[in-house]
Amino acid sequence: MPEQGWASAITSVAPNEIRVRGYRIDELMGRVSFGEAVYLILRGELPGDAVGKLVEAMIVASVDHGVTPPSTLAVRNAATTGAPLNACLAAGALAVNKHHGGAVEDCMRLLSRGAARVQAGEAAAVAATALIGEEKAAGRRLPGFGHRIHTDDPRSHRLLTLAKEAGASGPHVAVAEAIVAALAKGGKALPLNVDGAIAAVLADLGFAPELANGFFILARTAGWMAHVAEELQREKPMRRIDQQACMYDGARPRELSSSR
Amino acid sequence: MPEQGWASAITSVAPNEIRVRGYRIDELMGRVSFGEAVYLILRGELPGDAVGKLVEAMIVASVDHGVTPPSTLAVRNAATTGAPLNACLAAGALAVNKHHGGAVEDCMRLLSRGAARVQAGEAAAVAATALIGEEKAAGRRLPGFGHRIHTDDPRSHRLLTLAKEAGASGPHVAVAEAIVAALAKGGKALPLNVDGAIAAVLADLGFAPELANGFFILARTAGWMAHVAEELQREKPMRRIDQQACMYDGARPRELSSSR
Amino acid sequence: MPEQGWASAITSVAPNEIRVRGYRIDELMGRVSFGEAVYLILRGELPGDAVGKLVEAMIVASVDHGVTPPSTLAVRNAATTGAPLNACLAAGALAVNKHHGGAVEDCMRLLSRGAARVQAGEAAAVAATALIGEEKAAGRRLPGFGHRIHTDDPRSHRLLTLAKEAGASGPHVAVAEAIVAALAKGGKALPLNVDGAIAAVLADLGFAPELANGFFILARTAGWMAHVAEELQREKPMRRIDQQACMYDGARPRELSSSR
Amino acid sequence: MPEQGWASAITSVAPNEIRVRGYRIDELMGRVSFGEAVYLILRGELPGDAVGKLVEAMIVASVDHGVTPPSTLAVRNAATTGAPLNACLAAGALAVNKHHGGAVEDCMRLLSRGAARVQAGEAAAVAATALIGEEKAAGRRLPGFGHRIHTDDPRSHRLLTLAKEAGASGPHVAVAEAIVAALAKGGKALPLNVDGAIAAVLADLGFAPELANGFFILARTAGWMAHVAEELQREKPMRRIDQQACMYDGARPRELSSSR
Repeated sequence: MPEQGWASAITSVAPNEIRVRGYRIDELMGRVSFGEAVYLILRGELPGDAVGKLVEAMIVASVDHGVTPPSTLAVRNAATTGAPLNACLAAGALAVNKHHGGAVEDCMRLLSRGAARVQAGEAAAVAATALIGEEKAAGRRLPGFGHRIHTDDPRSHRLLTLAKEAGASGPHVAVAEAIVAALAKGGKALPLNVDGAIAAVLADLGFAPELANGFFILARTAGWMAHVAEELQREKPMRRIDQQACMYDGARPRELSSSR
Repeated sequence: MPEQGWASAITSVAPNEIRVRGYRIDELMGRVSFGEAVYLILRGELPGDAVGKLVEAMIVASVDHGVTPPSTLAVRNAATTGAPLNACLAAGALAVNKHHGGAVEDCMRLLSRGAARVQAGEAAAVAATALIGEEKAAGRRLPGFGHRIHTDDPRSHRLLTLAKEAGASGPHVAVAEAIVAALAKGGKALPLNVDGAIAAVLADLGFAPELANGFFILARTAGWMAHVAEELQREKPMRRIDQQACMYDGARPRELSSSR
Repeated sequence: MPEQGWASAITSVAPNEIRVRGYRIDELMGRVSFGEAVYLILRGELPGDAVGKLVEAMIVASVDHGVTPPSTLAVRNAATTGAPLNACLAAGALAVNKHHGGAVEDCMRLLSRGAARVQAGEAAAVAATALIGEEKAAGRRLPGFGHRIHTDDPRSHRLLTLAKEAGASGPHVAVAEAIVAALAKGGKALPLNVDGAIAAVLADLGFAPELANGFFILARTAGWMAHVAEELQREKPMRRIDQQACMYDGARPRELSSSR
Repeated sequence: MPEQGWASAITSVAPNEIRVRGYRIDELMGRVSFGEAVYLILRGELPGDAVGKLVEAMIVASVDHGVTPPSTLAVRNAATTGAPLNACLAAGALAVNKHHGGAVEDCMRLLSRGAARVQAGEAAAVAATALIGEEKAAGRRLPGFGHRIHTDDPRSHRLLTLAKEAGASGPHVAVAEAIVAALAKGGKALPLNVDGAIAAVLADLGFAPELANGFFILARTAGWMAHVAEELQREKPMRRIDQQACMYDGARPRELSSSR
């Protein structure tokens, strides 16, 4: 192969000057939130304030879900063998796929089919009914709807509320809500789960479905770090990790102070 | 092995109620920043506002450093083979070690030796000189000092400034600065690099050194996502990736609007 | 979720007795080759002698291909950061995908479409022409044919010869050879590459396409180990790894002694 | 950084000619076993017949150990999320560490301290007693001795027998056996486990301790492939994997035919 030039538009690095999408990184530090920085590096421009906060909320929503998710079990099974932190986190990322975390991507593709119908003039309710029918005919489950534990996912409500407050809610959110309504009407109520809510918001923000599980991995890395730290502090090496035998013994239920 | 109970203090999950360290996750969403959520899940309590901003700034500082870091090359080499996003990110995490990203952990251990001396009554300058001597005698390089590209790392200055503004600067930052001063005095000036600055701040905030490379991985995951997306959009599969042949062709230098 | 039993048919473990597919592992040791053991654990029965040797030859064929494959570059980029061996090997496995190693799986699926036609009575040459036409019409490249370096892959010839000697060659090999002949006749000669040859042999042996990249990873793990060892012995940490700048300086060309 | 040449002594690749350590790979195929190829690529020379067989036996010994090892659980937890095979195998490799598989490396280092004493003229029994005392004084467990299930590991006996038959047994094996004898004499009988036996053999063959967990990963990759295949064939996605609830339902105990 001949020597070949190529180009990157993400970050320029010169002695004592690092610029992400054109902005000096030391100027971004302390002036933009991590959510805004994530948006910037992926999209090339800073979002407005409200969208930046929405991205942060979306990441906060995914920060942890206890010890039962397979990715967290992969992380803890690596930690119990003495794996270093980075290997534990990589094992977690490897267990984020189609059936865990991956519903975001599949749901984004589903909702974009619905959004296309809406943008072509169809009512969201009609589009929703059509999508449900198509998925049923194809023998597929609706990705982003239903949850093995939650009948009404509190994260979804909150995220859609924030999206509307941010003015970032569009046809994808509309179709997602119309699917929930159509399912309830049809007697097969399924909640929009957090994957589905994130899918709707990411799609209305214009993100590509291919990036979906990256947001989950990024957010959950914080949770996995906590699980590794706890595993090392509280447990013996090479133990059998049975998620059913795990009790919660942390802080009691409490509320954020009203000042926030 | 008999069936054995165990406990976790991180997240409680009940139908329609998820609590991280006692707080409802849907209440956290939109009310705390991701930096605050990371602090909360790792430490058990929410930080004050200023510390939350400092954690965000620390993560923003690590979000990307162009195409040359080995972890980014591992990510792009995985992407060019058609690897899914989560596998690319895992490959990146696996290339964060002793010589790349790992200086944070080593530097935290170094600075904590210095901080112990300071807390025992020694002046930071004296402790710094002692540490430099010990490392030299042991034939070790000072982790967190010096950079292959930057003679004066702009991220370090900014981060220490923010730490001081947040009132979060303590003996570890003092020792780090004293080492820079002592090296300059001794005619072997080496800048505090971003790993060293993060190490000083993390240590003064009370984080365990074992978690250090997790912060880097968490932050850099955003950058790796951007590199995977760009690789897929702009390059052909199975290409030879030569970092020296890469030109930056992104946004021109620009400044944040003064309103931020 | 209720407590649920499940079963595995692979290995039974009792105090001082480990049986793989029913055979004591200590009886297998020294009496069956690794190729036979791999066949046994995946298929449930030991292969005949000739097939066992064929499996070994197939693994030997994939043991290494120098420094340019992206997976080997991912391994070396991890090693240069100080990653432990297992993390380097995992990074390598993560860079085995559709465009590198993955052609085996795609080619198995292609050849099985051809084998189905042959088994339904069609001549291999006719089936081959049909497949070429279908792939061309779909705008797909033929997986397993052509190579960026080799115009005539020596590993493919050898492997097909061994398959025939073992009496293990069937319709998949026949279709693969017919595709090569049809391409040459059509003026667009492309060699069967090692991925294609392995695909043909694996398929005629009755392996599932889903396992294909596992054989490659298993074999190449040996090569990756050699690259990690060499990286640590000969190179400095955190170096820039440019595969174009690499010279071979190992043993001169030599032949196996005739006694083998 | 200036453009810098470097060299590799492993594999030369020219159009239509691939040579591993000087031998044409197509000549190796079918003429050397995988064990011999592994030895060749790591050491630069082919082993004698007996040593080649010993390496194969060592790999066969590690091919699987049922569903309870943490690495296999990491593999199955990845598989249940829908992870592709290569990601499952990488997750397995990441869970091979100090406490699982890693005893080989630690035991090699222990035995090499003993072998040095033996080579300096000390009796193996004396060296063994000294090592036991040193480890006890340091509060360390003896790596490679004892097993959570087996009181007498059948793989260890077989491997040492094969090593002796191959004339490949040396001071490391002698010290390992002397440690077992000394422990029994002292009333604290612990068997040499398979990790310890592999450690003794690898060390007497002259392999570097740093490569130890690579042999385990290479061998166990075959077992992990079987577990992924079984998970996909027999189980539903996103299931809770409880190793205690797993029954063996495979082939009944059987013996190799006497002809082998």
